[in-house]
Amino acid sequence: MPDKSTLDVVLTPNLLSLYPLEGKVVVVIDVLRATTTMTVALDQGAVSVIPVESIEECLSYKDKPNHILAGERGGKKIQGFAYGNSPFEFMDGVVNGKTLVLTTTNGTRAIEMSKSAYHVIAAGFLNFSAVANWIINESRDTLLLCSGWRDKFNLEDTVFAGAMVNYLKDHFLADSDSAFAAEKLYLNSRKNMLHFMKQSSHYKRLAHFGVINDIKYCLRPDLTTVVPILKNNALVRASFETDMA
Amino acid sequence: MPDKSTLDVVLTPNLLSLYPLEGKVVVVIDVLRATTTMTVALDQGAVSVIPVESIEECLSYKDKPNHILAGERGGKKIQGFAYGNSPFEFMDGVVNGKTLVLTTTNGTRAIEMSKSAYHVIAAGFLNFSAVANWIINESRDTLLLCSGWRDKFNLEDTVFAGAMVNYLKDHFLADSDSAFAAEKLYLNSRKNMLHFMKQSSHYKRLAHFGVINDIKYCLRPDLTTVVPILKNNALVRASFETDMA
Repeated sequence: MPDKSTLDVVLTPNLLSLYPLEGKVVVVIDVLRATTTMTVALDQGAVSVIPVESIEECLSYKDKPNHILAGERGGKKIQGFAYGNSPFEFMDGVVNGKTLVLTTTNGTRAIEMSKSAYHVIAAGFLNFSAVANWIINESRDTLLLCSGWRDKFNLEDTVFAGAMVNYLKDHFLADSDSAFAAEKLYLNSRKNMLHFMKQSSHYKRLAHFGVINDIKYCLRPDLTTVVPILKNNALVRASFETDMA
Repeated sequence: MPDKSTLDVVLTPNLLSLYPLEGKVVVVIDVLRATTTMTVALDQGAVSVIPVESIEECLSYKDKPNHILAGERGGKKIQGFAYGNSPFEFMDGVVNGKTLVLTTTNGTRAIEMSKSAYHVIAAGFLNFSAVANWIINESRDTLLLCSGWRDKFNLEDTVFAGAMVNYLKDHFLADSDSAFAAEKLYLNSRKNMLHFMKQSSHYKRLAHFGVINDIKYCLRPDLTTVVPILKNNALVRASFETDMA
């Protein structure tokens, strides 16, 4: 019987350089709200989601047909942009058949930094089980990358990574201190996750902008089976991609 | 009434560049075992402890009278050195009246990286209350710096930082996610800290080298009131220094 693959938690993008990416799956986590919103867009019929680091790069898609530009900085919609980073903005058919070009403070950058991995996927609570089962099926060495806040540790992405460790640990070797700590924090939170998350600095930051409904939505589990996977610098539906293969 | 000073937790030295150090107190934490051993040495009568990053720098003190060279790499005593990094090696009068020159994998480097702070002190469980009360008395913006393991997160230093947050939070503003998470991990551990620590990778690493007694010693609280403080690149007793002022 072959050795199990490894599962580890990278607590912030600033630590990613300590982990070799070659041959690995990187799961990018930006629960509030980038990876949640990307998943919503694909679930709502977007052809793809292009994550870009800078506002300038985002604007370079302005005149392309069927491209929708969106983004936030510091939790707020970018001035002059029609769309921000709220999952609710991408429901009701607005992205159906289109490409969403999205730039955010943390999540899009974490994806950019992961590009040399074998696979890069995006995860949130809304596609938790779909992502977890995709990871089990893939069975490669896997890094759960928390997007953090401006390179620092954040609570919500760590709790999510801990929930993944808890779900996956029988299938993988997950013996690092960061995996252990993340799982402990998840176990502390699971009886009342919203209450736990309310103590995070990002909750306070977003609550200040009046987006409590976004946060509640971002914590709802298993609303979709879409697994966003990076192909040619754009996220597409992994299942769709498999169907096409 | 003036605003409270801030208290924050830096989870690994790799994240230290995200935090301005000017005017701050940095508390360097390498519970297993560097900052514990440094405190023991000062408690046992060492005049000072010089933390150095490299083996070569350590060896440059070889011919100086009354200097004792010690160090470890990867948890093991450096070949050719008379002393390693076990607190027990520096009891029984061996360092009394002498200067200890120490190089370790993580802790001495964390001290080196903190040198531009207003004050740098070293902490372990053995001087927990003395350090905590020194910090309250100083009442400056304070960073609790976990030395980690080769720049990655480690459990034992984070639990220690969380214990400090728990003790100090009424005196400081401690609202970061890393402070919150560290305190939660401490609260998870405090009923049976040794059991909790046994799940850390560093415990397993040291246990492999047969130094379980070191670990048990490193978790014993309040054995001394010595607070090591950095002055001219050497750690000296803070109380002694104050007496001299």
